[in-house]
Amino acid sequence: MDAVQKANSGHPGLPMGAAPMAHALWTRFLRHAPNQPNWPNRDRFILSAGHGSMLLYSLLHLTGYDLSMDEIKNFRQWGSKTPGHPENFLTPGVEMATGPLGQGIATSVGMALAERYLREKYNRPGHNVIDHFTYVIASDGDLMEGVAQEAASLAGHQGLGRLIVLYDDNQITIDGSTELAFTEDSCAKFDALGWHTDRVDGMDIEAVSGAIARAKETTDRPSLIACRTIIGFGSPNKAGSESSHGAALGPEEVRLSKQALGMNPDKEFAVPDDVRAFYSVARSNGEEAVAAWDAAMAAYATEFPAEASELRTALAKALPEGWLSALPSFEKADATRNQSAQIIQSLSEKIPNLLSGCADLGHSVKTPIKNESSMQKTTPTGRNINFGVREHAMAAAVNGMTLHGGVRAFGGTFLIFSDYCRPSLRLSALMECPSIQLFSHDSIGLGEDGPTHQPIEQTMSLRMIPNFNVMRPADGNETSACWRLALDSRETPCALLLSRQNLPILSPAYAPGHPAERGGYVLRDAGDFQAVLIATGSEVALAVEAHEALQKEGIATRVVSLPSWHIFERQTKAYREETIPPTIPAVSIEAGTTMGWHKYADVCVGLDRFGASAPAETLFEEFGFTVANVVATVKSVL
Amino acid sequence: MDAVQKANSGHPGLPMGAAPMAHALWTRFLRHAPNQPNWPNRDRFILSAGHGSMLLYSLLHLTGYDLSMDEIKNFRQWGSKTPGHPENFLTPGVEMATGPLGQGIATSVGMALAERYLREKYNRPGHNVIDHFTYVIASDGDLMEGVAQEAASLAGHQGLGRLIVLYDDNQITIDGSTELAFTEDSCAKFDALGWHTDRVDGMDIEAVSGAIARAKETTDRPSLIACRTIIGFGSPNKAGSESSHGAALGPEEVRLSKQALGMNPDKEFAVPDDVRAFYSVARSNGEEAVAAWDAAMAAYATEFPAEASELRTALAKALPEGWLSALPSFEKADATRNQSAQIIQSLSEKIPNLLSGCADLGHSVKTPIKNESSMQKTTPTGRNINFGVREHAMAAAVNGMTLHGGVRAFGGTFLIFSDYCRPSLRLSALMECPSIQLFSHDSIGLGEDGPTHQPIEQTMSLRMIPNFNVMRPADGNETSACWRLALDSRETPCALLLSRQNLPILSPAYAPGHPAERGGYVLRDAGDFQAVLIATGSEVALAVEAHEALQKEGIATRVVSLPSWHIFERQTKAYREETIPPTIPAVSIEAGTTMGWHKYADVCVGLDRFGASAPAETLFEEFGFTVANVVATVKSVL
Repeated sequence: MDAVQKANSGHPGLPMGAAPMAHALWTRFLRHAPNQPNWPNRDRFILSAGHGSMLLYSLLHLTGYDLSMDEIKNFRQWGSKTPGHPENFLTPGVEMATGPLGQGIATSVGMALAERYLREKYNRPGHNVIDHFTYVIASDGDLMEGVAQEAASLAGHQGLGRLIVLYDDNQITIDGSTELAFTEDSCAKFDALGWHTDRVDGMDIEAVSGAIARAKETTDRPSLIACRTIIGFGSPNKAGSESSHGAALGPEEVRLSKQALGMNPDKEFAVPDDVRAFYSVARSNGEEAVAAWDAAMAAYATEFPAEASELRTALAKALPEGWLSALPSFEKADATRNQSAQIIQSLSEKIPNLLSGCADLGHSVKTPIKNESSMQKTTPTGRNINFGVREHAMAAAVNGMTLHGGVRAFGGTFLIFSDYCRPSLRLSALMECPSIQLFSHDSIGLGEDGPTHQPIEQTMSLRMIPNFNVMRPADGNETSACWRLALDSRETPCALLLSRQNLPILSPAYAPGHPAERGGYVLRDAGDFQAVLIATGSEVALAVEAHEALQKEGIATRVVSLPSWHIFERQTKAYREETIPPTIPAVSIEAGTTMGWHKYADVCVGLDRFGASAPAETLFEEFGFTVANVVATVKSVL
Repeated sequence: MDAVQKANSGHPGLPMGAAPMAHALWTRFLRHAPNQPNWPNRDRFILSAGHGSMLLYSLLHLTGYDLSMDEIKNFRQWGSKTPGHPENFLTPGVEMATGPLGQGIATSVGMALAERYLREKYNRPGHNVIDHFTYVIASDGDLMEGVAQEAASLAGHQGLGRLIVLYDDNQITIDGSTELAFTEDSCAKFDALGWHTDRVDGMDIEAVSGAIARAKETTDRPSLIACRTIIGFGSPNKAGSESSHGAALGPEEVRLSKQALGMNPDKEFAVPDDVRAFYSVARSNGEEAVAAWDAAMAAYATEFPAEASELRTALAKALPEGWLSALPSFEKADATRNQSAQIIQSLSEKIPNLLSGCADLGHSVKTPIKNESSMQKTTPTGRNINFGVREHAMAAAVNGMTLHGGVRAFGGTFLIFSDYCRPSLRLSALMECPSIQLFSHDSIGLGEDGPTHQPIEQTMSLRMIPNFNVMRPADGNETSACWRLALDSRETPCALLLSRQNLPILSPAYAPGHPAERGGYVLRDAGDFQAVLIATGSEVALAVEAHEALQKEGIATRVVSLPSWHIFERQTKAYREETIPPTIPAVSIEAGTTMGWHKYADVCVGLDRFGASAPAETLFEEFGFTVANVVATVKSVL
């Protein structure tokens, strides 16, 4: 109440109503180490209803994380560690950024998948080195979001017994009673999805504790505990009403609430000594848990040195030594989706915890690792994940697996469906979580499926997400380079945009240090070039053909392949201007929107309309992706 | 089979497996008029599983729509009316574009909402002038998508008794058995959502017919009929397998299938005479239905002339005469979301079927029409729609209401959550469906909620969608202008981007013909200007301040307000170059990504990183949206 009041901004209702359930969870169940927030075997706690951030900050402060009372007082202010919604990269103990509803619960499914995979793969009798739960507090808003429903269906299918969701069922949404829009029988729905469900009085700590205990005992299914709570509990005039949801209570109501709760109304930011003492055991408990785990890992390493070494490397979010040698070089024309498949196969042999997922397009995006099984409840160490037609939950789950650590997972679908996962893609960038997505069928080259399936604005609009690395390789060797960049990335998510159709080999044989690893480079050159052709992916071949045609006419041009704007823009200014000299006319060629290209190009060959259903060759021809049109365009700028 | 085989591309499996249920529906239940595809009281039929387009084309051809056998033979070819996925703007009888899974079923919910609203509002005892059903064929992929689940929950809450979904439960997805990823109990789930559910043998026409009849009798709830089918039915070697899903069967398998089905294997594109005769009654039946409806409307008009006139105008997708006079002019600084609220209120009195929706942010986006009730199953003529925290389903439902006609609906949420609805926004643009969305809290001006809630790339990335009109008004008068453009739009969806914070009045008093209705215009000028400042929305005020500061230093500049790129780019070249002279240095100012702005500007004042949690004024200051920074930037280009 005090922090929200001081900021005069924020959400007091959820922290006040969900405090009892959070108290039960954090003081009786959660295994964590406040002085080692990144301890790999900690239970994960996700506040999916991120607007209740002050609940999380209170818990972190009380249990001894590095989050001082000054930070609490600085809620929602510039430079504080207590932003309006939780941000994992700012605040120790925050597992992920939440706020966009549904993302927390969906990401948690990925964390639970990663935990189970590692547990089943590495534990040995008497050695439970991976052994934790994933807990979520979710709101009605979370449960209404499609991404959460996709994820819940997936979690039920997978039987994720270590995933426990506490549903803060306060019957209030921003606009009023949940009766306005949300009257489904949530428990019955989750039952139908294969979950264990329970319904308790969320204001009763014993009742919540009992339900959590029962959920922990239910090992074959994820658990939803619907906790009936009172939003803004304690506030005499605002409890149970949407008025406590998203605005400070007001100074007088804060006083009245403190009185009603038996607290001193004159004190602000006061933590009673007994409360502080009660919570402070979390630190020593955490130290003991970490020490016990260290000992367990040592014993494990003695008996299973190879497994322990592999696991330690994975938990450190490192890759096995020598993995770069797995990246192939290519000599033959092929679709980059096929070349990517070869790369995946080769990498999968060097990187034991590389997990491949796809949203029911495995045959098309070519994601499955051969000779590995599907990850299912009966085969939890399978390395191919069938996400179903759930692109959004897939992207969120990949974020969860990547944040969890120990595995390196990627997802796959058609580029057009990146629109379906966009909120999770953006969140990965914000969280500095290096998730990887493969987006194939990356242009009108998709052909007959037509405009509903043909990306136009997707490539550029993904490039616009801050800290998001879009890579569109022109051939197999660039594809290897892009895979290298993706796996090397520590804080930036990456998307590889792959062609359906065959592309010729144009770039040098792949070896680490391939010029594409600088994001953009000169692919073809001619002395005293009069224009620069800048292209990506499948259009690089067209640029090269046009370059050759112009050469015959005595017009010297340079071809720059620009697979990654993100990486190129992080090169030195000297390199960038050497590659694309600002004083020379430039023409961009990309089978997508021209918007954005004016940054580099004077004239753009692109597509500012929807595509059409026809064979790919027809489409490229009809839409001007021809040597003749590029040649004419170049001449127009000279 | 023949069409897919001739194209050597497409999806034979669904049309073959779902033919029996489609036959039952189209020959025994569907009320439609092949020679009047836009008859307002037709039953709507949506093939949500749009990849099965050849099923729909077959039905349209057989029942006598303007879709010749030559078009069928031209499946998936350039210029045909039979694209890979159905496109409403190309093919008579196609209600909407489908293909991106989940969109069809979600859009149908909007159609059913519109039908119920009109039926309850306009019908009178003995006069059932609005009286139709909305039928959907959906696949497992549709049901897995989050947008469909949001929409199903909403439909159950709303008790949409005229919505009937046939679920093509063929147990096969692209990657194999649904056992791989989709094992929920769909009927139990839909039960929990408040639906009537039924399970039948989908290959049994009588069983399907019985289930449809029962669903029609269930008037208080939407219906899901799970029809167990056999994908690729009739193909001896591919039926029941994913191999029949997304590729031609092959010439030999086509022959074998025809033999197995008792057809002549040597004949291609053959329609037996008895089949043609059986289906051809649809045309005369349709003519009779339309004639009966015309008579009913005439009788209705006699008894209820005012209602009939209002309804006719609405069904013609026209607005009542004189509606333009409802658009207010503004004199006082205010947030454009508040000014939009005033506009909505005023318009709602002139436009009787203007419906306002919001995804649980009504208080913030300021969408609700005062003195109108919430649209609920007990109050179906309420004009405020509580979509719940279901942005994606909201956008799809608005598309459905707009496509249905008779109502003009808009949705509302924060701009950041446009990412959640992006597939439906794109689809509205592709479908040439003039849906309207209000996106408020349109920049870091949102303040303390922080980077998860602050749009950066959203404005520009929406601008990139072909045929999508993004409007970001600078003040109340521009807001009126943008509302006018939105309501006048016939084929282009519009989004109004609205500020949370107050903005001064800068533009002329509003009257139709306001300069903002040209998309961009000169707001402030100075003789012999040396630079042009181009801004949108809240940054226009900053541009004006900088212009004045520069003026004091003797530097003459022009300020261009550019609320709509889409409209501006449709003005004459002369007007555009007169407004933004290509030879004068230009600086853009927009609190969002700079990508895309190089089209108009030499230097950009923008934000190419995520925002932060702090009061809005702090953020604008810290991120360089200051007069000093703009002045310095202008000087840098001179």
